Amino acid sequence: VKLNGFACKNPAWVQANDFSFSGLHNPGNTGNPFGSAITPVTVAQIPGLNTLGISMGSLEVGFVTSNPDNRLISKTLQKGDVFVFPVGLLHFQRNVGHMNAVTISALSSQNPGVSTIANVIFGSKPDISTNILAKAFQVDKNIVQQIQRKF
Amino acid sequence: VKLNGFACKNPAWVQANDFSFSGLHNPGNTGNPFGSAITPVTVAQIPGLNTLGISMGSLEVGFVTSNPDNRLISKTLQKGDVFVFPVGLLHFQRNVGHMNAVTISALSSQNPGVSTIANVIFGSKPDISTNILAKAFQVDKNIVQQIQRKF
Amino acid sequence: VKLNGFACKNPAWVQANDFSFSGLHNPGNTGNPFGSAITPVTVAQIPGLNTLGISMGSLEVGFVTSNPDNRLISKTLQKGDVFVFPVGLLHFQRNVGHMNAVTISALSSQNPGVSTIANVIFGSKPDISTNILAKAFQVDKNIVQQIQRKF
Amino acid sequence: VKLNGFACKNPAWVQANDFSFSGLHNPGNTGNPFGSAITPVTVAQIPGLNTLGISMGSLEVGFVTSNPDNRLISKTLQKGDVFVFPVGLLHFQRNVGHMNAVTISALSSQNPGVSTIANVIFGSKPDISTNILAKAFQVDKNIVQQIQRKF
Amino acid sequence: VKLNGFACKNPAWVQANDFSFSGLHNPGNTGNPFGSAITPVTVAQIPGLNTLGISMGSLEVGFVTSNPDNRLISKTLQKGDVFVFPVGLLHFQRNVGHMNAVTISALSSQNPGVSTIANVIFGSKPDISTNILAKAFQVDKNIVQQIQRKF
Amino acid sequence: VKLNGFACKNPAWVQANDFSFSGLHNPGNTGNPFGSAITPVTVAQIPGLNTLGISMGSLEVGFVTSNPDNRLISKTLQKGDVFVFPVGLLHFQRNVGHMNAVTISALSSQNPGVSTIANVIFGSKPDISTNILAKAFQVDKNIVQQIQRKF
Repeated sequence: VKLNGFACKNPAWVQANDFSFSGLHNPGNTGNPFGSAITPVTVAQIPGLNTLGISMGSLEVGFVTSNPDNRLISKTLQKGDVFVFPVGLLHFQRNVGHMNAVTISALSSQNPGVSTIANVIFGSKPDISTNILAKAFQVDKNIVQQIQRKF
Repeated sequence: VKLNGFACKNPAWVQANDFSFSGLHNPGNTGNPFGSAITPVTVAQIPGLNTLGISMGSLEVGFVTSNPDNRLISKTLQKGDVFVFPVGLLHFQRNVGHMNAVTISALSSQNPGVSTIANVIFGSKPDISTNILAKAFQVDKNIVQQIQRKF
Repeated sequence: VKLNGFACKNPAWVQANDFSFSGLHNPGNTGNPFGSAITPVTVAQIPGLNTLGISMGSLEVGFVTSNPDNRLISKTLQKGDVFVFPVGLLHFQRNVGHMNAVTISALSSQNPGVSTIANVIFGSKPDISTNILAKAFQVDKNIVQQIQRKF
Repeated sequence: VKLNGFACKNPAWVQANDFSFSGLHNPGNTGNPFGSAITPVTVAQIPGLNTLGISMGSLEVGFVTSNPDNRLISKTLQKGDVFVFPVGLLHFQRNVGHMNAVTISALSSQNPGVSTIANVIFGSKPDISTNILAKAFQVDKNIVQQIQRKF
Repeated sequence: VKLNGFACKNPAWVQANDFSFSGLHNPGNTGNPFGSAITPVTVAQIPGLNTLGISMGSLEVGFVTSNPDNRLISKTLQKGDVFVFPVGLLHFQRNVGHMNAVTISALSSQNPGVSTIANVIFGSKPDISTNILAKAFQVDKNIVQQIQRKF
Repeated sequence: VKLNGFACKNPAWVQANDFSFSGLHNPGNTGNPFGSAITPVTVAQIPGLNTLGISMGSLEVGFVTSNPDNRLISKTLQKGDVFVFPVGLLHFQRNVGHMNAVTISALSSQNPGVSTIANVIFGSKPDISTNILAKAFQVDKNIVQQIQRKF
């Protein structure tokens, strides 16, 4: 099926399927140490995003049974709330409820990357030298090695 | 409250509220001739979107009690489905269900515009000349005038 | 022939012909229902426009023998006049003279598209459902079908 | 008069005049040493070009009565011909006819600059040192000074 | 003094000083816990960088007297070497010599930001909750608190 | 060796070497008529610069034994000084010292071009017509031919 009104020279090459994706609502597997799961919807999933400079994604965050310390949360979001993280801003999202929570994201790139800070720093291959990390985080080298073993 | 990790020279000027919006989930009023309602979440609603080139929005589409002709729909979307409309592509969305439907949109501009074709063409002030529209749509002038009176 | 002063590693690949086009002045065939004809000069006609983000084109508009209603024209252009249509703005041009008129356009894309509204809406394949169009334009379905048959 | 279909918050601020310019056809005064004249149509002349990244202009080139050497012209243009100069490419245009010639240009910037090489180099204030120019052009200093006196 | 050849309407407003900066060579103070110092040369230091989308900077890194573990360094740079860090890539630079080392950087923004990971994560105000950081880095909360006290 | 923390689907394709270059410090050969030499470090030298829109380079300028006229220099730079040339601004750099001088440049393009004005104008192949150059520089044709013979 040709997409209505979409001008292209080889209509056979472009189909509605090239612009669609299903599964943003699939429950992510949060049974990992970070308790979260990402479903990307980028140009890798939707070829039609090429040149459009935009993509979407969902993040499922598991709930925590312990009693979290909520005093310092800068913003609590409910259904229907929108929050902006400027490009390049390090950030985190915490689930303060009693069920898994899902956020839907719009990203200003068709091919965005995800850098989980702890994983990138303590889990890179080859390792970042223990000396470097001990200085960067101002801790003993054995603590650095203890964290590195987790990643 | 200063936003965590957001570098700026005058922290007092930038607050978490400048990056948030509430109400994307509010039921839109679809009791209009088009049976639809838009909730924009652009730089006008969230100042922190400035320079980021991205925004969001929701579109609530009312259901239709009559029996629609579904033979030619190019794509039927369910919860969790994503569909891309390239920049500048004229498009429509039809609710084929039995309840109001809501779509959440990501837009590749911080200040996007909405042009409802029929309204822009037949409802512009001053009027586009009846002669012009009769030629453009290849219909009699009295039909053009009949449509213009609705907008 | 190598283009004067144009640095490239394989001079044989780039020639003056890759940057030129002839025929912007050719009389367009306005003997169609819309009475107009477009001559595009984009990256498809001039390979050298690649990466430059700009193109040109001409639009020939036939004259109309009937007496047009000029009261509501927002702007009448003469030879030497320039008018800007912002990106994405729906617009029309009417020839109010007694000979064919030609406009030369500069476009802020090397690969611009043209969407003739009536054709995109009433002539798309597969058809946009009559129900949808009747609601969008607030007219009876038989009028929609009458227009669709023209496209 | 409000421009048809142009969405803005303060319609009174934006008028059709903000998007138009008259005079691209005015004969330029070619009675100068270079025998040419430029009519710019940029954001300085049309405020509505702001953010659009495009502009136009015309260049009138006087004819030369002497017998020019045409052997090495890379491209001769007629009415209806289009030629592309990539951004930053030094170039010239010569009138090989017997009347003034006019070219209409589209420029990929709303605020383009014009650098007439000879004027920028030999006419800058303060002067570029004669030593520098003599080395750059590999000529005696008195020739440089002779050229500088013209600008 | 007007800058040679720089076209602007109010020459008095733009001077050579608006395009220059002195001090990129000043020895930075590396007597801090991280043993490094940054000298930014951005639009804040040079107004003339506005709209140019580029800037420079220098990073002075102190030397370390202890015997570093060099086995896993991915790249050792000497004078005259250039290394590229793509936008958004977390990275570090280690001085493996016996004197302070300086790197000169070119940055693809006129107003770049610097995020020192450890400081942004463990030193943000208000604090990121200890629970969150303990989970993110997979360590006990007391280790997180120990690191937070350093920042 | 895989670059730390750089996400890509085929790690084997991207190596640290793709992001590095050696030789920016190599003494350039200034034994040419212009007394200068350029060492480019662009996407042609570093593939990893692709899509980053930035590059570097060095310019070595030989010293001049004669007594230069310094009265009109707009800016004298020392070690540690930075100077900005806006995109497209014609400029020159003169060595006013008694040894070769080197400048390190950051350029806002991954594939910048260099146009040495005198060479582009008087050394283009095929030649720019002597008539044209005589008019542009307001000198006799024999002076133009004298300059052309040098390039």
